[in-house]
Parts: sequence; C-alpha cells; structure tokens
Amino acid sequence: HALAASERSAGKAYGEAVHWGMTSPLPTEIASMKVELCKPIQDCRLVFSGLDSSVAGEIEESYARAGYIVISNARNHRMDPNVPLLVPEVNADHLALVKEQGYENGGMIITNPNCSTIGLVLGLKPLHDLFEIQEVQVTTLQALSGAGYPGVPSLDLIDNIVPFISGEEEKVETEPKKIMGMLGESGVQLASFSISAQCTRVPVIDGHSACVSVRLKNKARKEEMIEAWNHFQGEAQRLKLYSAPKYPLQYLSHEAYPQPRLHRNAGAGMTVSVGRLRPCPVLDWKFILLSHNTIRGAAGTAILNAELLIEKKMHIKNSYHSAFALL
Amino acid sequence: HALAASERSAGKAYGEAVHWGMTSPLPTEIASMKVELCKPIQDCRLVFSGLDSSVAGEIEESYARAGYIVISNARNHRMDPNVPLLVPEVNADHLALVKEQGYENGGMIITNPNCSTIGLVLGLKPLHDLFEIQEVQVTTLQALSGAGYPGVPSLDLIDNIVPFISGEEEKVETEPKKIMGMLGESGVQLASFSISAQCTRVPVIDGHSACVSVRLKNKARKEEMIEAWNHFQGEAQRLKLYSAPKYPLQYLSHEAYPQPRLHRNAGAGMTVSVGRLRPCPVLDWKFILLSHNTIRGAAGTAILNAELLIEKKMHIKNSYHSAFALL
Amino acid sequence: HALAASERSAGKAYGEAVHWGMTSPLPTEIASMKVELCKPIQDCRLVFSGLDSSVAGEIEESYARAGYIVISNARNHRMDPNVPLLVPEVNADHLALVKEQGYENGGMIITNPNCSTIGLVLGLKPLHDLFEIQEVQVTTLQALSGAGYPGVPSLDLIDNIVPFISGEEEKVETEPKKIMGMLGESGVQLASFSISAQCTRVPVIDGHSACVSVRLKNKARKEEMIEAWNHFQGEAQRLKLYSAPKYPLQYLSHEAYPQPRLHRNAGAGMTVSVGRLRPCPVLDWKFILLSHNTIRGAAGTAILNAELLIEKKMHIKNSYHSAFALL
Amino acid sequence: HALAASERSAGKAYGEAVHWGMTSPLPTEIASMKVELCKPIQDCRLVFSGLDSSVAGEIEESYARAGYIVISNARNHRMDPNVPLLVPEVNADHLALVKEQGYENGGMIITNPNCSTIGLVLGLKPLHDLFEIQEVQVTTLQALSGAGYPGVPSLDLIDNIVPFISGEEEKVETEPKKIMGMLGESGVQLASFSISAQCTRVPVIDGHSACVSVRLKNKARKEEMIEAWNHFQGEAQRLKLYSAPKYPLQYLSHEAYPQPRLHRNAGAGMTVSVGRLRPCPVLDWKFILLSHNTIRGAAGTAILNAELLIEKKMHIKNSYHSAFALL
Repeated sequence: HALAASERSAGKAYGEAVHWGMTSPLPTEIASMKVELCKPIQDCRLVFSGLDSSVAGEIEESYARAGYIVISNARNHRMDPNVPLLVPEVNADHLALVKEQGYENGGMIITNPNCSTIGLVLGLKPLHDLFEIQEVQVTTLQALSGAGYPGVPSLDLIDNIVPFISGEEEKVETEPKKIMGMLGESGVQLASFSISAQCTRVPVIDGHSACVSVRLKNKARKEEMIEAWNHFQGEAQRLKLYSAPKYPLQYLSHEAYPQPRLHRNAGAGMTVSVGRLRPCPVLDWKFILLSHNTIRGAAGTAILNAELLIEKKMHIKNSYHSAFALL
Repeated sequence: HALAASERSAGKAYGEAVHWGMTSPLPTEIASMKVELCKPIQDCRLVFSGLDSSVAGEIEESYARAGYIVISNARNHRMDPNVPLLVPEVNADHLALVKEQGYENGGMIITNPNCSTIGLVLGLKPLHDLFEIQEVQVTTLQALSGAGYPGVPSLDLIDNIVPFISGEEEKVETEPKKIMGMLGESGVQLASFSISAQCTRVPVIDGHSACVSVRLKNKARKEEMIEAWNHFQGEAQRLKLYSAPKYPLQYLSHEAYPQPRLHRNAGAGMTVSVGRLRPCPVLDWKFILLSHNTIRGAAGTAILNAELLIEKKMHIKNSYHSAFALL
Repeated sequence: HALAASERSAGKAYGEAVHWGMTSPLPTEIASMKVELCKPIQDCRLVFSGLDSSVAGEIEESYARAGYIVISNARNHRMDPNVPLLVPEVNADHLALVKEQGYENGGMIITNPNCSTIGLVLGLKPLHDLFEIQEVQVTTLQALSGAGYPGVPSLDLIDNIVPFISGEEEKVETEPKKIMGMLGESGVQLASFSISAQCTRVPVIDGHSACVSVRLKNKARKEEMIEAWNHFQGEAQRLKLYSAPKYPLQYLSHEAYPQPRLHRNAGAGMTVSVGRLRPCPVLDWKFILLSHNTIRGAAGTAILNAELLIEKKMHIKNSYHSAFALL
Repeated sequence: HALAASERSAGKAYGEAVHWGMTSPLPTEIASMKVELCKPIQDCRLVFSGLDSSVAGEIEESYARAGYIVISNARNHRMDPNVPLLVPEVNADHLALVKEQGYENGGMIITNPNCSTIGLVLGLKPLHDLFEIQEVQVTTLQALSGAGYPGVPSLDLIDNIVPFISGEEEKVETEPKKIMGMLGESGVQLASFSISAQCTRVPVIDGHSACVSVRLKNKARKEEMIEAWNHFQGEAQRLKLYSAPKYPLQYLSHEAYPQPRLHRNAGAGMTVSVGRLRPCPVLDWKFILLSHNTIRGAAGTAILNAELLIEKKMHIKNSYHSAFALL
C-alpha cells in the first residue's frame, strides 16, 4: 500500500532507491511505487518496520502514538516490558501485553526477535514444554544475508570465518528468556534457564545453523524429543494462519543434516530443521538446528505476527486495513 | 631418507605417486625419490606414519617389532594404554609409557592426537594447571584440508557448512583426557573432566576454530587467564626443540580475532591463537581458539614429537638416525 | 513411470540408490520406486538418458533398436550425422534427421547439447539470424553442479578457480556448428563460423557464465542486437511447449549483470540472460551470457525436446506414452 | 622512514590508522610509526604512492615539484606521455621519459601499471619479441584483494561471480600498448596490436587468472613459445635487482595449471605462471596466465621499479636515500 524510508530515499521510485539483491525480480508495480518519508501520514493501519536500530526507536513510537500498529524487526523495543517479543508458535499469548502500552487510537508496537533467537526458541519450545529446560549452550554459524548489503566484506568470508557478530550474543542470551517467559499479572516473568551463546559468521548466504546443548529438568528419551519436535503445533498452526508452515519443526535423521543449502527452504523457509540429537557429556542432550534467517528469522515471522494479530481481531479500530513498510 | 606406501604407489617416483596440493612446489630431489613398500626394510631409525587408519594399525606394529621408532598420525594406537598420545608442550612425561610396549631392539610407537584435539589441549593446559578444568563444551568449525584430496566435495562447502565429521567428536571427547591425564605407576590416569564436542566443517582451507566454554574449579580472573596463555612454556620450549614455537599460545585482544586466514600461520603454524575470553552464563568462561590443523594439528606436532624423543636420547639404539615417512 | 540404472542400483528403492542433493525434498512416491536394470523391458515409449558416457552409447542404441525414443544428455551420439543435437528454440527442424537412423518400430535417439553449448547457441542464434556470425571467442566460468557428486573437490574451489574442464572446450567448439548448421538433402551442413573456447570452473553452485566476443558479417547496432535477444522466439515458443519459457533470452542493462546467483533462475531456469554488450576491439561485439547449467543446460532442455517431439506427434507408434529415465 | 596519509589518519600511530588484513602480523616498530600528512615535508627521496585515484593526481605532482621521486600505483598519471608506465622486465628503457617531465631538483613521477596489465604484459613480452603480437583477446578472473577492504561484499562472491570491474577493461586494453610501445625521439609510440578485455571478479583472495588468445605475425611453434617464456630474462634479471625473481615467467605443463591458490606465490609472488598453451581456432594461440595481483601486480613491481631507478643511479640528487609511503 505504501513504502516509507529516510530522506535519502524519499521521493524516489522504490526501484531506484533499493539495492535489489533478491533472486526473484522486483515486481514492476512495486518498483514504481514512490517512497514516502517515515512520518505517520500514510492511509493504513499496519506498519512493518525494517528500520535500522539507529533510528527505529523513535520513528516506531511516533507511528504508535499516531494510532498505527507497528510490527518491528528492529531491536529497540524488543525488551520493553510492555512490548510483545513474539513468535506466534511460541508465545502468542504475550500479545496481551500491548494493552499496557498506553498508546491511543489502537496504536501499538509488536516486535519479532533476533534472527538467531527465533530458530532457537522454536527448537527449545517443545523441549521446554515437556522436559523443562534449565541450561542452554549454543554456538551459531550464521549466514551473511542478515548483515545486509554491502554487509560483510568478502575478504572476511573467503577461506575464513569471523567469530564475532556485534551485539548478537547478548540478544541470543536475553531474548529467549522473555519469549519463553510466563505471562502474569505484572507482565512477563523471564524464564529462569541460563543461556550461553557464541556467535560466528560463516560463508553461507542464507540459513543460520546452531549447535545446541541443553540441560533438562525432567528425564527425556531421544524418541520423545524427536516426536516432540515433529509433532509440535503452535498457535499459528491451530489458527491456520496463512503463512504458518504445516510443521514448524522437522527432525532429519541423516547423520550430516540439517545443512543450510539443502534445508533452509523447508516449509517455504518457515520450518526449522533439527538433527543429530545425541547425549551431551556435559549437559544432557545436544543437537543441530537450522533456520532460514531472513524468512523464519525476520520477514516471515513479522508477517506471521501480523496475521496472528489480524486473526485475533486486534487490528480492528476503524476501517482501513492495509499495511505499509518502513524500509 | 626413504618413502614407503602401498602397492599402488610403490615403485613409482614420489612425484608421480603423489597428488601435490601444497602451495610451495615439490622439491625436485624429493619428487625423484622412489617410493618403497611399507615393509620394515629401510635403513633408518625413525618412521613417520601418515597411513590411513584402515591399514595403519598393523603396519605400524610391524615396524615397531622390527625395532623402528614409529611416530604416527593415525588414530589406531592413540588410546592404547602403553602408547604415548603426545603433545610435547603438554605431556612430554608420557613418553615414559613406551617402556611398557615390549618391543625389542628399541622399537616403539608414539602417536600425536587428532588435529582438533591438539589445539584444544594446548588451550586448556595453562588453565588446567592453574584453575583445574572440570567441564568443557566445544564446538569446532574445521577446515577442509584435514580431509585430504579429493576430500570434501565442493557441493558441500559452497554456500554451505556440514555439521558432521565422522568419528571426530568421539576423538575430541576422549583424547584430551589421556593427554592431560596423570602418569602414575599403572600408566596414565585419565583426567576427570568431561568434554562435549560438536564438530562442523566450514569452507576454510586451513585452520580449525573452536568455540570453547569451560568450568573451572578455582576462581579465575580474566587477566590471569590471558597471562597464563601468553606466558605458557612447555617442555618443547624449555628444551628449545628446533620446531617449537617461541610461544605455544597467543591471546589476541581484537574483538573479532582469531580468524583462520589471518592467524593460522602464527609461529609458522605452531602457535595456537586464543581470543574473545568472556564469562559464560552456563559454565564459567568462554573463548575462541584457532590452530593450524595440518601443521600444529598434524605434521608439525609429529616432527616436534620426534625432536623431543631425540633430545631425550630415546632414539639411540645404534648408529642410524635418519627418518622416512609412511605415506 | 519407471527408473533404470546399473546393477549397483538396480533392485533398490530410488531413495536408497540416489544421493539426493536437491534443495527440495525427494517426493515420497518417487523415493519408493524400484530401480530397474537398463534393459529395454519397460512398458513405455520415451526414455530420458542421463547415463555416464562410459556406458551411454551402447545402452541408448539397445533401447532405440527396441523401438524406444531415447532423449539423451550424454555426449556419445551428439555428433552422429543422423542424430539431432537439439535445442527446440534453435534447430527444431533437425528432428527430421531421425528418419535416417534406421531403427525399426519408431525407435530413435535425440540428444541435447553440452550444458555450456546450450546457453551459447541460444545467445548466438538471434545474432546469427540477423547478422551472420563469422567468429566466436568464448571464455566460460562454469558452475560445479554439472560435475555431479562428489564432483569437484572443495580444495580446488575455495580461494581458487580451475582453468580446465576435461573435454569441455572441444564440445563448445564443435557442437554449436552442428546445432546452427543448415539441414539439407544430405543431413546437416555444419555452420562455417569458427569458435574458440576457454573453459574454467569457478566456485558457483549453479549457473554458467560466458564472456563472448563475436565477429558479424553484417553491420549491427547495439539496439538491434538487444532487441534481437529480447524479442527472440523459437519453435518452442511458437508451439507453446509446456516447459518453454516465455522469453528464451533477456537482456539486462545493469552494468554488472547478469550474475549467477541473481539471474540463473530467470524463466524457471530456462531463460538465458545476456548483458554488458559493448564493442570488441578485436572482433566486433562482446557480451556476457548466463544460463542455468542443470536446467536450461541439461534436464530442462531434454524435457523441452520431448515436448517438441510429442507436439510434432513423432512419438505416436502405438498406445503407450509414458516416460522413464535412465539414471 | 615515514608514512603519510589523509587528515583522517594523520597524527595517529599507523597501527591505529590501518585495517591490517595481512596474514603476517604488523611489525611493532611499523605499528608505532606516526602517520604524517601528505605534504612534501618528509626528509627522504623516494615516495611510494598507494593513494586513491581521487586524490593521487595532485598530491603526487606536489611531491614531484618538491623534488621527490614518486613511484605510484595510482592510475592518474599512467598514460601521461612523459611518465614511464614501468615493468622493469619489459620496458626499463622507458625510464628515460622522465627527462621531459620538467620537475626541478630531481623530482619525477614513475608509475606501475594496473594489476591485471602487469601479468599480461609479462606473458606477452617474450611472444612479442619473437613473433610480433597483432591481436589479443583476454578474459580475466580477478581476485578480490585488489578491491581493498571492505571492498567486494561477500553477498557478491559467495556462490557467485561478478562480470564487471569498474574501469578495468579500459586499463587492460590501453596500458599494454604504452608499456610495449617503442621509445623514440618523440616519446613512446604505442604498440599497434589491438586488445579486447573482459574482466570478471571471482571468489579468490589473491591471484588474477587470465584466459588469453593471441594472433601472431610470425609463425610460432608450441615449444618455441614455452621456451620463450621459461628462458625470458628482463632488465631486472640482468641487473640482478634485489626483488627480481630468478624467472619472471614459468610454464606449467599440468593440464589444469596454473591455479591461483597453488601458484600465485611462485617466485615470492613475482613470477607469472603460464599454462595450457594450445592452438586457438579464431586467433593463433591461447593460454592461461596467472599473476599475484598485490605482489607482482602492485607492491612488488613498485619496489622493483624503485630498485631499477636506484641501480640506474637516477635517484642521486643529494644525500638522502630513504623512502616513505603515501597510503
């Protein structure tokens, strides 16, 4: 319906403003849309924000104050107590938090988690439900698409890996506790398990891999865990949201799976793949987890959040229903 | 002095038998050496074995029985109670085990550990000495050169990683306990800490990275740990062995270091680089470790082992001192 | 309908016999099909042969003798005078050659060209029609998927390129002359232009790039050439074959396009992309060309060939119409 | 002796100003050198300029006017009639051009060619001497190190190649004619052969490959050409310049050589490797050529140029002989 960006792009056709690096061509009708300024003057109700965190905080608030529903991929408001940090399969009930945001005219901010966090919490959720997670060790091997364009220099990723991604480990160690926390009278009580993350960048275009070890409170058998993953259904599946994958998780039994290039597109990029479940000599169990970082880990979950909200009729304030994106 | 291999190569000039993938040219005089059969008929004392594990076990024993000193990179005899699994900086004293091997005429087998293990135990040793390690979690991002040629298909490592290396995790979880075990009356008592390893293959030519978390018995401060690494000197340094690096370990303070391409050649490939030391929310501390897998992790340590043995005068049985390699 | 392979695979379910490296999962019903032996005992009419050239020649003939229509991706019969070397957009009329093959019961062999050749002849065809090509210089930068699995070792393609592909230059220098040759009384008269090819392998999964220079007999203007590509329609388009792309060729005006990752999937992998048309100081014009090597360059064109043949009703001998594949 | 850069870096220690991406550590004494401004106030005679072409032109002239000898890697003055575009093995006599520059106090500007040009002219020179080159077709597969840091985004070079390098083809088509031109009364007469270049970027760290076809005036046999390369000696070798490789060129007979990772470091990075010489159906002969782009193609040749100039005693104006670098 509308597109908005900074002054650098505003006024241009989207096709001129954007560096289009997708493998499918930019649709002509989208390319010719005129980019507007990030001011709450658009005639619509839902706003998707992919703004850089250097500016996202204030702009998103200005939209919420003006009565828009902001669905944000930026980190700025993720840990705000009244802002849902949402993965529809995991904590759809946290949507209730928005009532405390205090914006008028139905304005609100909803966030989706960091790209690595989303895959991780999806993998942990079925285990937590059944066996109660107590400790998590995770080393990520992250794709480069999440860093945008130009992003990571090729000098860093040919015959090399980079064992550092700024701010990433903090997010992965923090966000899952909110997402998997219990919603109570006074907001979300953070989950009590501890997480340790080591985040690395590898020469993969799309698909974050994570080597995970977990300590579980309750004794688990391998078959039970695999079944828990394969049969897991969240609110997104129960409500049959349009973009919800049939299976949020799939367990692959091949000893060398999942692999980014082969499995990142499972479920149109919305299914998280798990493999190599085996006992961990230090904690209890270890496994590999793979999720598509720009689909399940960003845009796809943002859209799923919007679909959830619409399904829950939280968007109905008055008549306009369309959506636009902050770039 | 001599080269030996299987019947497929025996009789050929080495230059014809070998797929030479090194970046420095094969020296002419080596290229023209005739490859012999793997039978203990060579006129020398030291034997370096790079044999495949499918045949290494028996051939190495046949050489030891014939009075040769076998320095092996194969896994077959690594965990034999009487066979030293040796990193000269870590457990030079384990050389004493060979007395129990029972071979006559000075025959013996000495092994060097798995490529990932060597880097790991070097990184752990100074910490263990000072703070006593209790638990280790390690995820490796391993280079492909260790898989030989043709080795890993490029279809597996362009825009991809492979979260599995056959047999690797078992070695990394087992070998360090022997290497860092205490030598007593009845052999080596395995170290009591537990290790959990997740091993992955990444598109890097040389240089294994390892994301490590450790639980320590004694309280450690960051500066103490860094100093322990930077000042560490092992028997190889004390004896000033020819191939020993001045510093077996170096700590790099840049937030995104060490990286394979930049730091694998530190100390001519014999220095292990450590970086990103920070508290671990699950165990106590976490850090990244990098070692050159074919130098420090294989050939270089094998040569260092030979130098140690010569320095200790364990090779003196009679007059011949030269060395040859089993390919 | 049926699958056939060598004795190594025959008798197994396809899912067990195959190394499935596609990014979409192997359909269950295909995975459970039993692989048969490569003998002409199958109840069908069309045979797709992806056999290795070491065995393709004889097996394909045995099928043709038994009355099957063989559509082959192997090189063995490509240059046989009576065998069409077919790209439906370029030389659909060459199908008439099969009348001279002499097989009974409607048996025949049809071949599709080498993967690099197909993209090249598609790019050359509109120019040849209008301006008459006299000389072609081409350097290819070829993807690794064409080499199969395990195929090219990763040691050869990380931080490296390989300036040699066995037999490739000969095919690229020979096949286009047949494809673009004139069908006359006595078969195909080879086109008279000369081609020089240099073929290299680069670290790209799918998508062959080709840097092409051409000498043209007739004076051409840049706009005419671009229009010739963009408007080109072949027999496949005129007949509206099911797998025919709407546009066999597209010219991209961005100075750094086409690129393998961005444009190989144009037209579901069946459209060849051209870019960077500019004068050549040695010949007349130079440009870059990109085609998907396993779709347009192999399987897709094979299927298009089958569709052409069916559309031309050349398959009607008796009642059975189904197809099976020689693996 | 001294280092100079823009205001952004001036005043800092070099170790702080630089992004050090070399695989050998930055020497401590260099790291602590203070970066000065690019003004001709340094107490030395030789100036190496690695300035960006956006500023190199004027700054280099200001140094020349102040009596410095400027050895530049920038493109700004390369094609100036009075500025030698120098490869010591090819056109050492062109040094005489500086007499016409008109700078006082011994000031002068000397340039080294574009990275791709240097390797190409070295490969062409022995052929031109013996057989006279008439036409050259070249497609380059260039390494990314030449683009600096951050340089080429990894999104462009994982599972991809980029068929465009800004300004590169123009340089490769122009510079060789000057370098291989004849020095006469009125300066350098450009060589009369024509060159067509197609330049691509591939995922290789160091080492430019070039697929070359040449038309020769005089009939050449393969053995003569190989001998011409292997025996070629230029002025740099005759004068035994310190950085001159023993062999400027080497021909490799393996069918798949030269390859960047294996052969770029030949002759400490100063030897150009040639391979795959074979007849060209369009011109006369074709071959592959590989040169290290940052050593032979830039810094190494710049140093060789300085050594040539010193050997020729062109630097002797007064007493100071040291060198500093413009970054």
